[in-house]
Amino acid sequence: MEKKETPVIYAALLGLGTVGTGVYKVIKSQESEMEQKLGAKVVIKKILVRNLEKAAAKVDDPSVLTNSWEEIREDDTISVVIEVMGGISPARAYIEEALAKGKHVVSANKDLIAVHGKELFDAAHKSGSDFLFEAAVAGGIPIIRPLKQCLAGNHMQEVMGIVNGTTNFILTKMAQEGMEFADALQLATDLGYAEADPTADIEGLDAGRKVAILASVAFNSRVVFDDVHIEGITKITASDIRYAREMGCGIKLLGVARNTEDGIEAYVCPMLIPSSHPLATVNDSYNAVFVQGDAVESAMFFGRGAGEMPTASAVVGDVFDIVRNILSGCCGRIGCTCYKNLPIKKMEDVNSRFFLRFQVEDRCGVLAEMTTVFARYHVSVVQIVQEESRKDGQAEIVVITSRVREKDMNRALDELRRSECVSEISGVLRVYGE
Amino acid sequence: MEKKETPVIYAALLGLGTVGTGVYKVIKSQESEMEQKLGAKVVIKKILVRNLEKAAAKVDDPSVLTNSWEEIREDDTISVVIEVMGGISPARAYIEEALAKGKHVVSANKDLIAVHGKELFDAAHKSGSDFLFEAAVAGGIPIIRPLKQCLAGNHMQEVMGIVNGTTNFILTKMAQEGMEFADALQLATDLGYAEADPTADIEGLDAGRKVAILASVAFNSRVVFDDVHIEGITKITASDIRYAREMGCGIKLLGVARNTEDGIEAYVCPMLIPSSHPLATVNDSYNAVFVQGDAVESAMFFGRGAGEMPTASAVVGDVFDIVRNILSGCCGRIGCTCYKNLPIKKMEDVNSRFFLRFQVEDRCGVLAEMTTVFARYHVSVVQIVQEESRKDGQAEIVVITSRVREKDMNRALDELRRSECVSEISGVLRVYGE
Repeated sequence: MEKKETPVIYAALLGLGTVGTGVYKVIKSQESEMEQKLGAKVVIKKILVRNLEKAAAKVDDPSVLTNSWEEIREDDTISVVIEVMGGISPARAYIEEALAKGKHVVSANKDLIAVHGKELFDAAHKSGSDFLFEAAVAGGIPIIRPLKQCLAGNHMQEVMGIVNGTTNFILTKMAQEGMEFADALQLATDLGYAEADPTADIEGLDAGRKVAILASVAFNSRVVFDDVHIEGITKITASDIRYAREMGCGIKLLGVARNTEDGIEAYVCPMLIPSSHPLATVNDSYNAVFVQGDAVESAMFFGRGAGEMPTASAVVGDVFDIVRNILSGCCGRIGCTCYKNLPIKKMEDVNSRFFLRFQVEDRCGVLAEMTTVFARYHVSVVQIVQEESRKDGQAEIVVITSRVREKDMNRALDELRRSECVSEISGVLRVYGE
Repeated sequence: MEKKETPVIYAALLGLGTVGTGVYKVIKSQESEMEQKLGAKVVIKKILVRNLEKAAAKVDDPSVLTNSWEEIREDDTISVVIEVMGGISPARAYIEEALAKGKHVVSANKDLIAVHGKELFDAAHKSGSDFLFEAAVAGGIPIIRPLKQCLAGNHMQEVMGIVNGTTNFILTKMAQEGMEFADALQLATDLGYAEADPTADIEGLDAGRKVAILASVAFNSRVVFDDVHIEGITKITASDIRYAREMGCGIKLLGVARNTEDGIEAYVCPMLIPSSHPLATVNDSYNAVFVQGDAVESAMFFGRGAGEMPTASAVVGDVFDIVRNILSGCCGRIGCTCYKNLPIKKMEDVNSRFFLRFQVEDRCGVLAEMTTVFARYHVSVVQIVQEESRKDGQAEIVVITSRVREKDMNRALDELRRSECVSEISGVLRVYGE
């Protein structure tokens, strides 16, 4: 009997940083099983790098390295391009050129997809190519494919979660060890969890990109980065976290997307979340995405949201899926799933519960003044705690509201800020839940 | 411009019980979106039921009901068969006949797949059909597709979890309210979480079937129900749970499958698990599956493991995937992934940590006698707690061991059982972890 020859699928890797190196390793580690697993061998034929010399130490055979994108683009034997360079440019052009050439693309590039997702999907659709991006959200955690396939029978109502490991590490340290933000950030930097410039993480931009992508996939309607209201964690103090704990809550940087009757809500902000919620126990640099749909009820996906090997796990899962599509002749089988065009709700129209901390004059009538202001703007108060009086004639008041429109809350806070009795509004945080 | 006609895919539902009714509802609820989502409409053309009259109340159009399997089998317009009847016979024959006819099959039938999975996959392969079974493990939680696709770049080391909602509800009530097993079971029965005959749940059989399926998919090697060592929760007492809590642990019925160098370990038993482990916070009837792989590190999938709508969510996800395969002409794209033939480890060779409770004579030298026996069988003790003496001249001793081979542990316990100083071994539980 004649032995059938194993097909070989050639891939090119764009970038050999942390994730690229991981992808290289994972593909190597699967070498002996690929044939049985997929019916084909995947070979990385070219790796695009800036510095050939520096990259040489990271690969078995430096002859695969190149600094010419054109060399990869024009190589018709390369059918899969794995983009792990990050950034908008030149990644966008490379991906579009690869797709135009009929190559299939795997990308881990959330910055790009959160802004130009539609254009990339259109390009893939035009050439019948696959464009997969499991690694762009929550690293190694399977979430895109589960949403597009396993949960396809649902109308998803909400997708939210902890999608940035750096900030979750910082908030965990603040909660567990009473550290202040600056110290926890320093620790994160020392341990390599935070980058030299941590802005994208601590200001919530990274999480915002992931929320845009998650919302688009979950609600079948395009949400881009600019649609997402974003607040970071730089103003959170150890005492906010202590107060939250007294109220049975933790503070997490949550990315939230909700599909409501009057549009999609999409925002990232630090929020109080009840300690009994599964997300409240997601600590350190772990990520988790929580979804709610009309059939599945609730489900959560937990794991490593970043890192060399976990992110590579997601990338290689996509590559293997493309290989299966190539072998079955069904590339482009699942493309863009944004077939709706739902409006985006303005943040000022979003309803949330609020946790508020005020420094006030310690005298009779202050509470009455405050509650009068709240009532004027339809802010309904669920709980008021007045802390013990202090020597300076000031007292602290902590308020939890029921759901109130952002716009009304802001007006009430503006008026309270101007009022004589309130000397400082020292904390304004949203509370997750109804 | 001519409007292209939407393809219609006809499906048949075998069974209209809890899950079948859910599937019917979910497909109805997706009616208006299917065309855009999938490029086709899915229509349930026939539903196989035993009692036509009883079933009529559950559907809009009773003319779809039939009690003739042959009618479905011989209808060549029906390309997808959804088996939600459960049980081995006649489900097995129906599935095999459907596959032989070139129909695609979705099944939620863990009893069947855990025993005859290989035969069913072989039949699907032979006819180039899809055979999907996401709902057979952990209900609505996406886990089969994530393992087969998203995590395909990993060598999975472990897959374990809480895969039975009834027992998790019972153990949660015992832990949170101090109930004894019988009372918690009664409550579960009253609330409809436990069936009239709860044996399959409380004795661990249901969990065992899911472990067999999970292990097969995760390790690419067939594990069947008989390979899984099974212990239930009927012997767990409220005081076991109290002791566990004192040691910083909860008690959960865990299904565990590990891919070790000398074979696959697969077992279901109540285990102590540290309260800090993500699975320890999975309460009530929720399920969760925790996986470890060489690239992804650890990931967890949490949600509803049973129930009408969550299970239907998983079934319909599979149906939609088949529709996409039909439209792209790539049915059978991912079939059986068991390309290895790994040995199954005997339970007596499995290594575990143990939590042991002894009632002993309250006199000098008892500890020395016990530890001598332990040493003889290579049982290394990590912690011994002697509780305060009681009036009856007896004392309770709680022991935690390091990892020890099951066979050695059993020999040590046999000798201790015969020994004069031990009046009773009142608790033997494994402890999850290294």
